[in-house]
Amino acid sequence: MRAVTFQAPGEVAVEERPEPELLAPDDAVVRVDATGVCGSDLHIYHGRVKIEPGFVIGHEFVGTVVAAGDAVTRVSEGDRVLGCFHTACGACFYCLQGAYQSCDEARVFGHGATLGSLQGAQAEQVLVPRANLTLRRVPGGMSDDVALFAGDVMGTAFHAVVEGGAGPGDSVAVLGAGPVGLCAMQVAKATGAAHVIAVDTVEDRLAVAESFGATAVHLTEGDVRGTVKELTEGRGVDVCIDAVGNPEVLDLAARVTRKAGTVSAIGVYAERVEVHMGVIWIKALTLRTGRANVIAHVDAVLAMIAAGVLDPAPLVSRHMSLDEAPAAYEAYANREALKIVMSP
Amino acid sequence: MRAVTFQAPGEVAVEERPEPELLAPDDAVVRVDATGVCGSDLHIYHGRVKIEPGFVIGHEFVGTVVAAGDAVTRVSEGDRVLGCFHTACGACFYCLQGAYQSCDEARVFGHGATLGSLQGAQAEQVLVPRANLTLRRVPGGMSDDVALFAGDVMGTAFHAVVEGGAGPGDSVAVLGAGPVGLCAMQVAKATGAAHVIAVDTVEDRLAVAESFGATAVHLTEGDVRGTVKELTEGRGVDVCIDAVGNPEVLDLAARVTRKAGTVSAIGVYAERVEVHMGVIWIKALTLRTGRANVIAHVDAVLAMIAAGVLDPAPLVSRHMSLDEAPAAYEAYANREALKIVMSP
Amino acid sequence: MRAVTFQAPGEVAVEERPEPELLAPDDAVVRVDATGVCGSDLHIYHGRVKIEPGFVIGHEFVGTVVAAGDAVTRVSEGDRVLGCFHTACGACFYCLQGAYQSCDEARVFGHGATLGSLQGAQAEQVLVPRANLTLRRVPGGMSDDVALFAGDVMGTAFHAVVEGGAGPGDSVAVLGAGPVGLCAMQVAKATGAAHVIAVDTVEDRLAVAESFGATAVHLTEGDVRGTVKELTEGRGVDVCIDAVGNPEVLDLAARVTRKAGTVSAIGVYAERVEVHMGVIWIKALTLRTGRANVIAHVDAVLAMIAAGVLDPAPLVSRHMSLDEAPAAYEAYANREALKIVMSP
Amino acid sequence: MRAVTFQAPGEVAVEERPEPELLAPDDAVVRVDATGVCGSDLHIYHGRVKIEPGFVIGHEFVGTVVAAGDAVTRVSEGDRVLGCFHTACGACFYCLQGAYQSCDEARVFGHGATLGSLQGAQAEQVLVPRANLTLRRVPGGMSDDVALFAGDVMGTAFHAVVEGGAGPGDSVAVLGAGPVGLCAMQVAKATGAAHVIAVDTVEDRLAVAESFGATAVHLTEGDVRGTVKELTEGRGVDVCIDAVGNPEVLDLAARVTRKAGTVSAIGVYAERVEVHMGVIWIKALTLRTGRANVIAHVDAVLAMIAAGVLDPAPLVSRHMSLDEAPAAYEAYANREALKIVMSP
Repeated sequence: MRAVTFQAPGEVAVEERPEPELLAPDDAVVRVDATGVCGSDLHIYHGRVKIEPGFVIGHEFVGTVVAAGDAVTRVSEGDRVLGCFHTACGACFYCLQGAYQSCDEARVFGHGATLGSLQGAQAEQVLVPRANLTLRRVPGGMSDDVALFAGDVMGTAFHAVVEGGAGPGDSVAVLGAGPVGLCAMQVAKATGAAHVIAVDTVEDRLAVAESFGATAVHLTEGDVRGTVKELTEGRGVDVCIDAVGNPEVLDLAARVTRKAGTVSAIGVYAERVEVHMGVIWIKALTLRTGRANVIAHVDAVLAMIAAGVLDPAPLVSRHMSLDEAPAAYEAYANREALKIVMSP
Repeated sequence: MRAVTFQAPGEVAVEERPEPELLAPDDAVVRVDATGVCGSDLHIYHGRVKIEPGFVIGHEFVGTVVAAGDAVTRVSEGDRVLGCFHTACGACFYCLQGAYQSCDEARVFGHGATLGSLQGAQAEQVLVPRANLTLRRVPGGMSDDVALFAGDVMGTAFHAVVEGGAGPGDSVAVLGAGPVGLCAMQVAKATGAAHVIAVDTVEDRLAVAESFGATAVHLTEGDVRGTVKELTEGRGVDVCIDAVGNPEVLDLAARVTRKAGTVSAIGVYAERVEVHMGVIWIKALTLRTGRANVIAHVDAVLAMIAAGVLDPAPLVSRHMSLDEAPAAYEAYANREALKIVMSP
Repeated sequence: MRAVTFQAPGEVAVEERPEPELLAPDDAVVRVDATGVCGSDLHIYHGRVKIEPGFVIGHEFVGTVVAAGDAVTRVSEGDRVLGCFHTACGACFYCLQGAYQSCDEARVFGHGATLGSLQGAQAEQVLVPRANLTLRRVPGGMSDDVALFAGDVMGTAFHAVVEGGAGPGDSVAVLGAGPVGLCAMQVAKATGAAHVIAVDTVEDRLAVAESFGATAVHLTEGDVRGTVKELTEGRGVDVCIDAVGNPEVLDLAARVTRKAGTVSAIGVYAERVEVHMGVIWIKALTLRTGRANVIAHVDAVLAMIAAGVLDPAPLVSRHMSLDEAPAAYEAYANREALKIVMSP
Repeated sequence: MRAVTFQAPGEVAVEERPEPELLAPDDAVVRVDATGVCGSDLHIYHGRVKIEPGFVIGHEFVGTVVAAGDAVTRVSEGDRVLGCFHTACGACFYCLQGAYQSCDEARVFGHGATLGSLQGAQAEQVLVPRANLTLRRVPGGMSDDVALFAGDVMGTAFHAVVEGGAGPGDSVAVLGAGPVGLCAMQVAKATGAAHVIAVDTVEDRLAVAESFGATAVHLTEGDVRGTVKELTEGRGVDVCIDAVGNPEVLDLAARVTRKAGTVSAIGVYAERVEVHMGVIWIKALTLRTGRANVIAHVDAVLAMIAAGVLDPAPLVSRHMSLDEAPAAYEAYANREALKIVMSP
């Protein structure tokens, strides 16, 4: 089968690979119908996240179950399914606490040896371990483009908002209007936020944010703090989502969040950074961090997408063939698209 | 001033009363611009809730502050305000736990001696003790009709849904499509419910429910349990709101709620009733009960109404003058209106 | 192997049965070292819970893993383990919510066809499906007698207290001083309750309750409501645990609980009963019900027992051989012991 | 009356001041029987927290109400009371959320103009605004020494542990064995922690920690990370309390906390510091920060102290007269005592 592999920083290839086979009774094999290119893939593409050359990449997929082990009970051969971006065991200390993202046996698709040596989903077929936890049937009538978001980008946005503690009537600022940030705005609106404030530097993205019901503010040309104050009676937002992951953004998040509020840092941090703990502490903020717990939330996210309460369709800006993967990565790296969906 | 008083079961009058005066430094006097007739008023009107003849009734109001004690800091003379249906002290054991509805010094407007001897709001003016907790400024541009709901009917609906534990992606059944039930449907939709199922016997109310996005089912002519199963993959709803308060409804609520779900009984219970504890226990249900905690939620409710996320305007089916109160009560008792707003 | 089987109401037997074999890769077989007789077994013994004659009963066990499928990762052959009273799949809608007691594939040991046709643990060996979720290693130095409680009686008590919402500084009443009630008193004390009030009619049990730090009150000869008032500044307890399961007890629970408090009904209900919904509603109580979620809590319970924070040892009042099962059941039915531990 | 005043860094004086008088109907005046010297006072003493020379300092007090305004209902003249370290209004946005520490009108005793210009409690008498929220009756039989902790040090410890999310069966590390850290160890044990690990560099304090049931480890001479691993099956603690407030400690906290756990930073931060956000994010930690919410917890803390579940008495290492304040501050600055109690 054909599969997209990492070769070197800035270089991916479409190569031939053997079709996957079931290795355990709770494995499934999925024939991929659609697979997305995601911001996390770019970290690999740019060489910031190191993986082995030749490793199959990609972690967003919708497809059809072509084989399922005896212990797979939630889906069956022939089912149209979507996958979460990682697996979890369902039985360890962390899974029993509902913290599936921290599962001791979690493996992330397409992220090389450091995250579990699980070949990726940008391929004709993908092997899915722990299929009961990782796969879900696509509700009838839902398109591939939209289903693709449930186990990754929209699930991450849902986590950022809901585990960030945003509740009905709250004001929520979202710093960064990439796919996760834009989906977070949708989630915030859909769960009852009174105000959603979108901050970015790209006009097109701010326009999408506005179309999602957010009040859009340009990071440098607009007045972020003034807008927040105006919409929150001077208090600051209840929850601020850092959908970027850098210290200036974290700093701004702390500034625009009200006393006793929450900063939900869903953007990736990997290093030591300078943080204004003085501001954070005096305001008695809570900081939530880490990779999203999409397995815990995928049923809710799917239900909301199926009900039309959430709709990621406007984010899909380009469809390409799997064979065009090198061009797709180049376009995505150049920010020419919010979401590229590839089909084998 | 003129005020609506209870006289006898089935009889209210408009009588002359002295204008209220400040008695404590945290009192305010509000000149009433609009006041609603509510289901709770009907309990008094029908004699089911006993109050002293001559007592001024009514507990929903929007108006203008005409006097405020020295300790009133959240509102000022001249402010356009709305009131919550009861007062709370803000300092007792219950208030410190955020359970304002259970405040040891709570007083309900217009409910006679048993609930604190606090004269009602269906009058030209009303005395508001504990004004810092009970009054809120009406956001600019919000109509009287709509603001009237924040401190009573919509606040109650919000409590039923949110303290009932309904979250994003959940399915919520609302049994009873009176004003509180209808508002609960709005709240459920606005906070991310994937499905809202409305149950009643009155076609007009079911029609309003559908216009709010609910799936409407006639209690006796429709298939309530079948509809719930169909929309929830056979599981039952996550949260069922009993917006009626009688044992058959509670029974149905237990039947249509999924295992480990919640029945939120916002409808009033006053007596011993037979309950199928077997069903409740086997399904491991949680039962939440009691009067709504509107003070805790009024800021969120107001923010959602101001943002247009909630909109009770369609429930206001009639405007009358305060002097027409006897006719208003008769019409409301005959279910000729969902909400009647009276103006002095 | 020998196994205790239900024969008819009031009659159990020790019969020969084939040794269990692994049927699925996540199965384990445990050689039983100790197995308890529990109040739930009595429901079967008395014929109130119907099971097939000849079915092996019992659901509390400690033993040694003698066989484990390939997918069993949390325990290994040779490990000394304890079991939870039921199994769960770890992957269904309910398990993903952490509600393992409501798992769609839950099976209870020794409860016949209605609860999953899973042969019981009062036997020389027991087959344990879903071993990763159901079994735990016994911490070094912990006796069989004590470990036996973690997956059943103490886990149930923990659930009643902690999911009942009892927190540090709270006052907790426990109605019923059987094994679950007594363990609940320990849990309440160990988690920071300021006052624990024990209510029963058996003097011996009240004496054990007092030795656990509770204030013991005789249901009929003492002044339950007066004692509660005295210890809670007249308010009532924050949480009341109904560890019996009958309407008079539920009624008392509602009476002694403070406004906005919680009644945690861990005692079994199976029928329609009359409930004073008026009292419950006016006080705005929450009612939590259902079988305990021991899988969710077994790690915490084990850690507390290992740390000596909880100690069920005083409840073990008799040791017998498995062959003496008929006598053990008779003694237990006569309330001659709080906990009987049998060894094959 | 005599009162302790700040003069200059390193210098306090006992000066004559007019007796306070009631200014508002919810004010009370308390004749101080005992007042503590606290770590926060040292920040003032050392000049790190700037206040006006001549300002009366101190914020821990037990005494007798000698005057109370008309609106003071929770305590009366003649009552023996203790105070919280700050006031709150009970009616603002933050108070309605239960976040009393973030009250818009909060004033801290003895901290000068920046924290509300409220004269301190190291004096013969102290004026207490918002007395209903700030004062509590001392339960019968409780000593001054012990009551003094409820509204400040023990309340802060309670907040750090409970709002830090530590629950029954958890492992808790406390970094810093000063008064707050030591009390946090007590709270953790009393609320069901299986393991409490105390880290400090002062042997005497580690000895007190051990007497409170903690496993004590010397920061530099012991193996903090090894001990944590050993007690937590290699996972790390569920909750780590930073009771110091500096970046090295925060770093250690992130290292010893398990994935998806919480770092509860109760130690004061005032500046930018370098934080290893990479470790925090990869482990998906939650960081809770800020001044403690003692008003929310004082009733629970008092109930636990009264029940003997918490006992700060061992921390009181010295009693002095108010006139000896300069010597008391010098001794405290030299770490010669854990808690000094002064009596006018």
